[in-house]
Amino acid sequence: MKRIFPLALVVCTAGAFPNATKAQEKVEIFDSNISMAQVLAAQKGWCDALITISQDYRTGGLAKAKATATKVIDQAYAYQYGPVAFKPTLASGSQTFRTAKEGALAYFVGNDPKFPNDKGFALTPWRTCTIKNQVIQLNGSSATTMGNVVFTEMNGAVTTVDKTWTFVREPDGSVRIVLHHSSLPFSK
Amino acid sequence: MKRIFPLALVVCTAGAFPNATKAQEKVEIFDSNISMAQVLAAQKGWCDALITISQDYRTGGLAKAKATATKVIDQAYAYQYGPVAFKPTLASGSQTFRTAKEGALAYFVGNDPKFPNDKGFALTPWRTCTIKNQVIQLNGSSATTMGNVVFTEMNGAVTTVDKTWTFVREPDGSVRIVLHHSSLPFSK
Amino acid sequence: MKRIFPLALVVCTAGAFPNATKAQEKVEIFDSNISMAQVLAAQKGWCDALITISQDYRTGGLAKAKATATKVIDQAYAYQYGPVAFKPTLASGSQTFRTAKEGALAYFVGNDPKFPNDKGFALTPWRTCTIKNQVIQLNGSSATTMGNVVFTEMNGAVTTVDKTWTFVREPDGSVRIVLHHSSLPFSK
Amino acid sequence: MKRIFPLALVVCTAGAFPNATKAQEKVEIFDSNISMAQVLAAQKGWCDALITISQDYRTGGLAKAKATATKVIDQAYAYQYGPVAFKPTLASGSQTFRTAKEGALAYFVGNDPKFPNDKGFALTPWRTCTIKNQVIQLNGSSATTMGNVVFTEMNGAVTTVDKTWTFVREPDGSVRIVLHHSSLPFSK
Repeated sequence: MKRIFPLALVVCTAGAFPNATKAQEKVEIFDSNISMAQVLAAQKGWCDALITISQDYRTGGLAKAKATATKVIDQAYAYQYGPVAFKPTLASGSQTFRTAKEGALAYFVGNDPKFPNDKGFALTPWRTCTIKNQVIQLNGSSATTMGNVVFTEMNGAVTTVDKTWTFVREPDGSVRIVLHHSSLPFSK
Repeated sequence: MKRIFPLALVVCTAGAFPNATKAQEKVEIFDSNISMAQVLAAQKGWCDALITISQDYRTGGLAKAKATATKVIDQAYAYQYGPVAFKPTLASGSQTFRTAKEGALAYFVGNDPKFPNDKGFALTPWRTCTIKNQVIQLNGSSATTMGNVVFTEMNGAVTTVDKTWTFVREPDGSVRIVLHHSSLPFSK
Repeated sequence: MKRIFPLALVVCTAGAFPNATKAQEKVEIFDSNISMAQVLAAQKGWCDALITISQDYRTGGLAKAKATATKVIDQAYAYQYGPVAFKPTLASGSQTFRTAKEGALAYFVGNDPKFPNDKGFALTPWRTCTIKNQVIQLNGSSATTMGNVVFTEMNGAVTTVDKTWTFVREPDGSVRIVLHHSSLPFSK
Repeated sequence: MKRIFPLALVVCTAGAFPNATKAQEKVEIFDSNISMAQVLAAQKGWCDALITISQDYRTGGLAKAKATATKVIDQAYAYQYGPVAFKPTLASGSQTFRTAKEGALAYFVGNDPKFPNDKGFALTPWRTCTIKNQVIQLNGSSATTMGNVVFTEMNGAVTTVDKTWTFVREPDGSVRIVLHHSSLPFSK
């Protein structure tokens, strides 16, 4: 789950730039933006983590799944910096919004008496997690994606959700989720 | 619906600041951030606009409602600058995401053969629209809100949705929606 | 001087992205960042504008130079949105900082009794203006450059300055200077 | 020199906001912007650090001054994340721009054979360092200041410089300089 994106300290010969006069001069670039590749890697990281927690539950039980989920949430979400805007797919009522880490963990692995309706989304025997982006917005160190995520279970059952994420790239190169709104498709 | 927020060109006497040495010196402030008040005004503007479109439909029919909705979308969303991440509450299937203005208009006032499932969300006889924020994230010229919006109809029926918005304040002071994910609460 | 950078509404086939499952799906990209090419074009635009004002002075006198300079400042600086952090090379004393448009215009074309020390930097018979970047920082919709700008006059005289700019790209695609600190090289 | 600004996790009763319907509801705020107070504290931190290095030189010699300067640069500048746009007041020639930490340290305490012209700006017996801001620009997590800084020596000598800083607030609450352009006032 470690996603360290080395900071973009690119030293290019100025010859690559139109105004350069001497090929031997150097321009140092400090690029603090999140790139498209980093956004897609962060999305894939979320999917991979979900599958890993699910596998860990099957191979190591709740303890293993919970340990993995704790690590994943610490690394992939921004709870240590402030309240995350997280509306999980199956959360409802007065516990719809999980702005603190505790609520995120309960959502993923359940078994928390404070969140009695949480079955543990990641404990489902997931087999695949696939992202289908519709729109991606790049705004400096943050980026928003909106689209579908398709989950398949071991038994072949398919769940599709509408999902929005905003990822923020920090100065140390890590990428964290500050916004996550997921919902089941509307049906009459 | 016009929401012009004058740019924060505040000229303060430096005496207000700790390092100032002479009370008569001036510091000019250029504040390009969106303020909490601007965020709340933009949310209220969205609610007010919905109620207005609904009223216009009752008093002036589809033509009036559509004219108002067109103006509202032009002013409140950022479609003229790029694809908006808009997942309306009741949109589904291959038309779930309304990244272009046309799809937003169809969602609000329906009657567009290209969007056959759109009944026109704003044509419902809405009476009130109330915002209940859970988390607000302030990030320079943009801000994200997540929480519930509660709609009541003339007949007293209540609809509650889970809603996320990201608003961007532009240099001219206008505030526009770049992200809007709305969903019905999950229920088993 | 018109520098309209069309907004990056790129529609790519999702096949280009790692998580894509169907080549026919599309991802819409809304890129609000300023690109390296836009930064370099804005710098070149500044140089070109200086040379143009200088030529206009020689061919059309002060009136023509002043008209061009007014247009340049309106388009290349952000004075209409707030106080610009502008420290011109040769400004000094209580008029060192030109946070309002009036002071920028006086600096470039002089002949303003309110700025008695301004000779009009752009009225010098400039022949070339060359940018030598040392560092470029890309931060979303804004970018900072630091380095030298080398001016040569018709008679061959060379002036080198240390120059820092921060450019901001607005939603309409225009790029404007919000920070400009220029100084003569230090010499003992 | 430690400047930890706790993250703005303000939990307010929604009653403070216009759209609130129940006083007992809470809105969590995640404010990632740099505040005016943080900007002024960072400026003062720079001045205080300069005076401290100068004092340390007098009381503990070069070793002590260099140790303090190293710590100051690590904490107050962003060299660990990328090239800083730093043009010190008295740097010149091919060593005008100090984009790496090594060049910043040499500028402040001298005694580095790779930077033979550096006398060590902070080794001067400085007594006071006073900031006179002319313009402050607040742009989300970063802020730019432009104005004068006035230094007085033990013997009463006064040095005034034109100075521009851009400070960036990181998610951990620290505030770092990414841009620093300082120059002696122009005089004919």
